[in-house]
Amino acid sequence: MKLIKSILAAGGDARQLYCAERLAAHFDISVTGFSESAFPEGMSLKRLSAAGKSPFDCVILPIPALDGEGFVNTPLSQEKLPLETIRGLLAPGGIVFAGRVTEELRRAFPENPVIDYSVREELCLRNAVPTAEGAVQIALSELPVTLCGLPVLIIGLGRIGTALAGILRGFGAQVTAAVRSPVGRAKAAAMGIPAVSCGELPTDFGLVVNTAPELVLDREKLGKFGTSTLFIDLASKPGGIDMEAAAELGLKVIWALGLPGRCAPVTAGYIAADTIAGIIEERGEA
Amino acid sequence: MKLIKSILAAGGDARQLYCAERLAAHFDISVTGFSESAFPEGMSLKRLSAAGKSPFDCVILPIPALDGEGFVNTPLSQEKLPLETIRGLLAPGGIVFAGRVTEELRRAFPENPVIDYSVREELCLRNAVPTAEGAVQIALSELPVTLCGLPVLIIGLGRIGTALAGILRGFGAQVTAAVRSPVGRAKAAAMGIPAVSCGELPTDFGLVVNTAPELVLDREKLGKFGTSTLFIDLASKPGGIDMEAAAELGLKVIWALGLPGRCAPVTAGYIAADTIAGIIEERGEA
Amino acid sequence: MKLIKSILAAGGDARQLYCAERLAAHFDISVTGFSESAFPEGMSLKRLSAAGKSPFDCVILPIPALDGEGFVNTPLSQEKLPLETIRGLLAPGGIVFAGRVTEELRRAFPENPVIDYSVREELCLRNAVPTAEGAVQIALSELPVTLCGLPVLIIGLGRIGTALAGILRGFGAQVTAAVRSPVGRAKAAAMGIPAVSCGELPTDFGLVVNTAPELVLDREKLGKFGTSTLFIDLASKPGGIDMEAAAELGLKVIWALGLPGRCAPVTAGYIAADTIAGIIEERGEA
Amino acid sequence: MKLIKSILAAGGDARQLYCAERLAAHFDISVTGFSESAFPEGMSLKRLSAAGKSPFDCVILPIPALDGEGFVNTPLSQEKLPLETIRGLLAPGGIVFAGRVTEELRRAFPENPVIDYSVREELCLRNAVPTAEGAVQIALSELPVTLCGLPVLIIGLGRIGTALAGILRGFGAQVTAAVRSPVGRAKAAAMGIPAVSCGELPTDFGLVVNTAPELVLDREKLGKFGTSTLFIDLASKPGGIDMEAAAELGLKVIWALGLPGRCAPVTAGYIAADTIAGIIEERGEA
Repeated sequence: MKLIKSILAAGGDARQLYCAERLAAHFDISVTGFSESAFPEGMSLKRLSAAGKSPFDCVILPIPALDGEGFVNTPLSQEKLPLETIRGLLAPGGIVFAGRVTEELRRAFPENPVIDYSVREELCLRNAVPTAEGAVQIALSELPVTLCGLPVLIIGLGRIGTALAGILRGFGAQVTAAVRSPVGRAKAAAMGIPAVSCGELPTDFGLVVNTAPELVLDREKLGKFGTSTLFIDLASKPGGIDMEAAAELGLKVIWALGLPGRCAPVTAGYIAADTIAGIIEERGEA
Repeated sequence: MKLIKSILAAGGDARQLYCAERLAAHFDISVTGFSESAFPEGMSLKRLSAAGKSPFDCVILPIPALDGEGFVNTPLSQEKLPLETIRGLLAPGGIVFAGRVTEELRRAFPENPVIDYSVREELCLRNAVPTAEGAVQIALSELPVTLCGLPVLIIGLGRIGTALAGILRGFGAQVTAAVRSPVGRAKAAAMGIPAVSCGELPTDFGLVVNTAPELVLDREKLGKFGTSTLFIDLASKPGGIDMEAAAELGLKVIWALGLPGRCAPVTAGYIAADTIAGIIEERGEA
Repeated sequence: MKLIKSILAAGGDARQLYCAERLAAHFDISVTGFSESAFPEGMSLKRLSAAGKSPFDCVILPIPALDGEGFVNTPLSQEKLPLETIRGLLAPGGIVFAGRVTEELRRAFPENPVIDYSVREELCLRNAVPTAEGAVQIALSELPVTLCGLPVLIIGLGRIGTALAGILRGFGAQVTAAVRSPVGRAKAAAMGIPAVSCGELPTDFGLVVNTAPELVLDREKLGKFGTSTLFIDLASKPGGIDMEAAAELGLKVIWALGLPGRCAPVTAGYIAADTIAGIIEERGEA
Repeated sequence: MKLIKSILAAGGDARQLYCAERLAAHFDISVTGFSESAFPEGMSLKRLSAAGKSPFDCVILPIPALDGEGFVNTPLSQEKLPLETIRGLLAPGGIVFAGRVTEELRRAFPENPVIDYSVREELCLRNAVPTAEGAVQIALSELPVTLCGLPVLIIGLGRIGTALAGILRGFGAQVTAAVRSPVGRAKAAAMGIPAVSCGELPTDFGLVVNTAPELVLDREKLGKFGTSTLFIDLASKPGGIDMEAAAELGLKVIWALGLPGRCAPVTAGYIAADTIAGIIEERGEA
């Protein structure tokens, strides 16, 4: 099997730059899809130039890979980056690493392996940490009380909920978990955390963090909370909190998406780099 | 579907008694396979008597269900309890709950659902806690130093390794994890624990706890440790430590199996009860 | 001894309002030194009006009690509040509770007990928590990496350093403590945290938090750190970090004072209230 | 001031041997008051022999220094060791380090500095850790349930109570603290632990650990607990639990004294050694 030597990191936010920087220790890496002002001071990454370009063994697209119009997702550049451009830069059979891969994306690279590194367990596990830390940052900023001693409800004990519970315990918060299954209940029991059912939520919490990817806090449930409770929703669209109802009820809800890239871009970039390097090694191409 | 009303708990250690006691709140439960002296003072459970017996909707066999000779595993009774006896007590189509189910066991109940509750995630998750606590108890008993400040190596970050790492962190131990996969490495990173590869283990630890179900510490690796390190192996047979080599090297190894039943029989019994009750509910038979 | 019934809370920031609100459950309390816009919505506190005023058994001045010109410290009001005004509102022998009491303040109330509640151990212990949480909030906001896995140096293991160490451990940070005495070294050992001497600081940390009230990081020591380290100084003036040298060296230093009032005014107000109520009870005046 | 070169460690349990071993790196140390079988295998310490003995600059007596009859406390020897013997081995003005110094002991060395190292803050702080770990070991051995999820009452939040609370939190126990002062209440608040007053104790705990050096659990209070609660008393005589009443009520109480020496003799010996070395350095005699 052919070894991977040259990599093109195309598009994405600051995470992608740190990802490229970390991979640069082992690969010949170039980047494209960034305006010059996007590069942090002192970072020396090879920019892709029209002249010197050569086919790459591999391309890394960001998380998510595409913007709403089907171009590569390039929030740090003014220019559109079409998928055909990427295809033209890729060696025959070259690998496409991308986040949140869609059918559209796969169709654009019919003769290449398209690997969604954003669903890899090792990435999701590690990304739960900057997500949980970002939620804590929001809570610390918004709440006029300390987390120490605060009754907190965490909805869902998946990777993020578990990471969050561990951090909040270190603060001395009084954590309760809302769970939806026997396994969720067992996770709470194994952490020594009181568990409640999502169906019958108590409401005396100063902070409620939702991590469950489905509507848990509907209008009826929200109506039982007081306005001093802060709500943070970490779930992707459509989210777990009825935002319209919350607004009408005068509740404070913060819907926080993409925390790893916003709160800890270096760590998030390294996580992506390690995941991709691991996949390459696993495939015997390192 | 028929509702479960009467249950027979047959054989097992003290866990089974506490399991039965907990289920007695919701079911008509009888027990068999225990000598009278096995019952803790004050526990009022209905003994199965030859006279009053009737077919049961369900039978609970222990973990493991069978002894080495194919009888029900009855460590707290002098009498053998054959599977045929159990079969004769079971209503047609009655459910058999059992731990570590073998083909032999399934063949003995050809017309009954045989459910291995010992492999359920919710049971394994919660049983990791008494196992980890039991390992800590051994370490506290055997070590002449405090866990606080002690360099500890945990081999494997599955359920037990994760539970153990959390407890040891509370003691202020200096935990390192030995992992065998990118996911294991990610788990360590997500806990902020330094990770080493199982292939290249450092040796300056006061305590090494193995949780991996395969030979990790062979003669060569063991030979690099000093005699002041305490080894605890929590893995089932064949275990993760070459015991013969360890003995020859003068290393202190404690192979600790079945800790939930030995260290926390009440909790372990309740875990089994909750798991079984959950399965019954899930099947719509509660 | 006369029982305290009426209290005047004069000046201060939002903490003082929450302090007054909490004390209102047990005392007849009025407030002065706040513009109307300073009151949070829904808070019903009696304003001191020229008409209805009567001598108060007790007055609460904020932390610090005085501004730079010797007036009551009233950051939330445009008007000056002279100490003579307060004196005129106080009953003969009425108690003055104040923070960071100066000789000037004592001289202004020659015939009243002047009690510095800001030096009480129970207040300092509890205020260490919002201070530590505030430092964590700054770190989360400023750092592009996660606290999980981050090497952090805490200088000083007093109340704040200890609280911070506990929180950071929950994040999975790799905490080291710099200590200056055998007792400090013992505290670190008792938490299982590696200790270094303030005289010989290692420099490979992503975050350095100073809690020691004296110059620890002078120009020479600062010169050994790289620019990716974030410094947070929690010590009162003159602080523990040579700010001028740090600026010249291009180091990022955040000098964070008064965190309890800024980050958790409700909690900080309640802490003051509980402390004052405790002193009143202790004196047999409740 | 004269530098200390030679030290005699006299009497005590295994701690004293490890103390001597640790000090041997820096001083010329001899030991006496141990039968040969008391020495752990492989430990090479110079025994005091009648022939080669010379005056010592310093003697270390154990904690406690004396037995009930006024001899040096020598639990690991059959022979009595009179204080006169020690005095005869000490150089003029030589220092006596001793634990729990009594007037009797001071009178026996009228011309020597007698230093009670057992009351030093750095020793007490660090000894709280093996004490707390010893209490956890007892709880793990005696309880048929896991600490995870267990409601635990800790009476007193001094050094030991605080250490214990931190460890138990790591287990996922539900810790409540019983406190006797505003400072105790503040400590609990700063850890995020619910506090109750010693005067009005709730009783629904699976484990109660007393660390307060006074009678807290008298007959009346004990009478409200059920027999499934385990009590551990860590307080020195007279202890905090009415043992007679507890026995009559059928309650299980374990009075655990001297845990550092019993559970972690190596650590406890090192703590003593570090404390003594620190005092010598502080006095400018190192």
